Amino acid sequence: MNGIALNQLTASQARKLMAGGRLTARELVAASLSRIRDRDGDIRAWLAINQDALVEADRLDALPKDQHGRLHGLPIAVKDVFDTVGLPTTHNSPLYRGFHPAADAPAVELLRLEGAIIIGKTDTTEFAACGNDAATANPHDLSRTPGGSSAGSAAAVADFHVPLALATQTGGSTIRPASFCGIYGMKPSAGLVSREGVKLYSVSFDTVGWYGRSVEDLALMADVYGITEKLNEDRKSRDTLNIGVSFGPYRDKLEPESIAALEATATRLREGGHDVTFFDLPAKFEALDLYHRTILHREGAAAFRALARRFGSDLHKEFHHRVENRDNRTLSDWVTAIDRSAEAQMMFDEIASGFDAIIAPSAPGTAPPGRKPGDPLFNAMWTLLRVPCIHIPVSMANVAMPIGVTLTSMRYNDVALLASAAKIAPLLNT
Amino acid sequence: MNGIALNQLTASQARKLMAGGRLTARELVAASLSRIRDRDGDIRAWLAINQDALVEADRLDALPKDQHGRLHGLPIAVKDVFDTVGLPTTHNSPLYRGFHPAADAPAVELLRLEGAIIIGKTDTTEFAACGNDAATANPHDLSRTPGGSSAGSAAAVADFHVPLALATQTGGSTIRPASFCGIYGMKPSAGLVSREGVKLYSVSFDTVGWYGRSVEDLALMADVYGITEKLNEDRKSRDTLNIGVSFGPYRDKLEPESIAALEATATRLREGGHDVTFFDLPAKFEALDLYHRTILHREGAAAFRALARRFGSDLHKEFHHRVENRDNRTLSDWVTAIDRSAEAQMMFDEIASGFDAIIAPSAPGTAPPGRKPGDPLFNAMWTLLRVPCIHIPVSMANVAMPIGVTLTSMRYNDVALLASAAKIAPLLNT
Repeated sequence: MNGIALNQLTASQARKLMAGGRLTARELVAASLSRIRDRDGDIRAWLAINQDALVEADRLDALPKDQHGRLHGLPIAVKDVFDTVGLPTTHNSPLYRGFHPAADAPAVELLRLEGAIIIGKTDTTEFAACGNDAATANPHDLSRTPGGSSAGSAAAVADFHVPLALATQTGGSTIRPASFCGIYGMKPSAGLVSREGVKLYSVSFDTVGWYGRSVEDLALMADVYGITEKLNEDRKSRDTLNIGVSFGPYRDKLEPESIAALEATATRLREGGHDVTFFDLPAKFEALDLYHRTILHREGAAAFRALARRFGSDLHKEFHHRVENRDNRTLSDWVTAIDRSAEAQMMFDEIASGFDAIIAPSAPGTAPPGRKPGDPLFNAMWTLLRVPCIHIPVSMANVAMPIGVTLTSMRYNDVALLASAAKIAPLLNT
Repeated sequence: MNGIALNQLTASQARKLMAGGRLTARELVAASLSRIRDRDGDIRAWLAINQDALVEADRLDALPKDQHGRLHGLPIAVKDVFDTVGLPTTHNSPLYRGFHPAADAPAVELLRLEGAIIIGKTDTTEFAACGNDAATANPHDLSRTPGGSSAGSAAAVADFHVPLALATQTGGSTIRPASFCGIYGMKPSAGLVSREGVKLYSVSFDTVGWYGRSVEDLALMADVYGITEKLNEDRKSRDTLNIGVSFGPYRDKLEPESIAALEATATRLREGGHDVTFFDLPAKFEALDLYHRTILHREGAAAFRALARRFGSDLHKEFHHRVENRDNRTLSDWVTAIDRSAEAQMMFDEIASGFDAIIAPSAPGTAPPGRKPGDPLFNAMWTLLRVPCIHIPVSMANVAMPIGVTLTSMRYNDVALLASAAKIAPLLNT
């Protein structure tokens, strides 16, 4: 295996070794469990571990090759807001301690049907929303946050516990932890993956996402979720990409590391032979973060109403704030937010149609100290615009903590964006 | 009780009698169960009956008055696409026979927390989508459909099994059965009620709705779901309503009964002293039904992917058609549908802002023979526009089967629309 420890293989590497008969699911799962045992006292990525993982691996190893799924034998982490059979689903809420759903979320079930082994459930900001923080540490500096809400899933991939993990994004919960932890992450366009059986916060924004250690691994997951159709079947893939780079509407909120990462990205892409254009988004996009919060908080009121009624003061007060609409966003504010967001979606698609990919910051800077999930300012806009986002780490010699960039494009241009990302990643993550 | 049988009371009437100590929950529930026993062999509204309903009634009867909820002791039917504890949730699918979720859907939990008694689960079109039809008969003519997908919930209210019922609407699944069965129904604006724990078909359109036997009962349910905030706090309620009447963009699909009901509505409202204006919607609204189906089928592909992968040919072929995108709606078609729908939302709000309520057909005509759910053509547009809809029966001396009209308004104008409906209903349902 070329001297790489089993737990450091990408999913695609492991898959090839298994297909060639040079690796068993048991060996891979055992390496994953061993790494977790060694490290999770420090990292605290996991809320529950699948005690049957090795049994499942043996069952998979015994299958004839023609019954191998696309994720055959691969260990996967699942954020603890997805319903899972056989593993508790707690949403990192004391109110759901020991809760056992009766069915897998479809997004989880599809992984199992493809032969993946759910290694366990990972820590998260409570209900992937607010309230209690995840206890997880950033593997690159234990005093810092891995980012949230998908804290445990990101740390588990970054710390080589598992090659793949399921996450969600409502504001910046998939992409920001990928940036803080130095891994690959993808939030597909809205509506492509079922959100059934995933704790509800915002019906407009909640999106299933995932982590891997290569673009190839992100594409493998996309394939399992049926994301295989091109937006423009006629558009030819070219060697030279036309890339737009934008600091976005909140440039004054960027720390020097993020600006440097974006500038290094532009330089390396030009050196790699691609066309790079810096551009500004329309000034009115500055309001998108406000619109995102308005829709989020109004939809959150509906999502948490029953919990608030049932648990009273046992439920974290931040959820009561949503239900009671404490920041006083009116129904008219909500309508305005919906309509201006729809217009921005059309406007952004028009802009993005001129590029193979648009590159933007993934976070204000590197992971801050503590356990707070971090600021979603540089992600929420893309979630609101319903567009695909792929995080790619950018190697920076003078930056101690991981940093990276977001690749995005028009709505439903996921397949072409993954192809562009595969070309771009080797130039940035060197 | 003024000679009205207990099972024929509206929820609001029963509530007042219980508050006055003149009726117990046990008496009301016993009347409900007795009616179901007598009638459900013919009606087939129910897939499961709560065997503990009388025990729950006794527990509620023993509570001190200050612990009575807003739905204290009221028997309620729940469509079998809502997760329920203690009652199986089958979605009328053979694949979910005997399935027991571990938690109530929040929309169900809120009813229980207010003292409602879930009498049982009602039949539905499979997954509230397509596939298997409900077996339920229309109480007004057993050879005819009650409409779908909320077939059992509508029939259970119409046949006086229960005063209230939970439904859902993705196309026309709440309003059309209300029309076919001659009861009151409400689909609130999108995003006001949690859709967690409700079988997912379309994340953009799936909406929790409900049935009652008066506008007051619909408003009671809206209150429980926190729909209490006015869109325009400044707008004064006036005695004379300004009402717009529109046949909508598909007038040529209307049967004579529906046209007559709309014309009778206009006449009676004018006689009642209200201002009535007939108007046409913009011609481009004719495309909204196509856009609805495009979004629905694309989102349905994500919703049913795991079921299709797991059950293969045991899953009804119509779900495979969604997953495989058999009608070949491209990603570009999807984007077009989203954007044109957003524009239509803004346009319709502008039109609707000139009226206290807009009145339109609820269905092409009266309930057709058979068990098919019926055509959603006159409902899907409103679901897509995210606006509130209230169905009011219209008494028509020469029409054998029930018929009625839809009241609608701007997005999030639910509270004012309920107030208008309360004034309008006595003039139409005489």
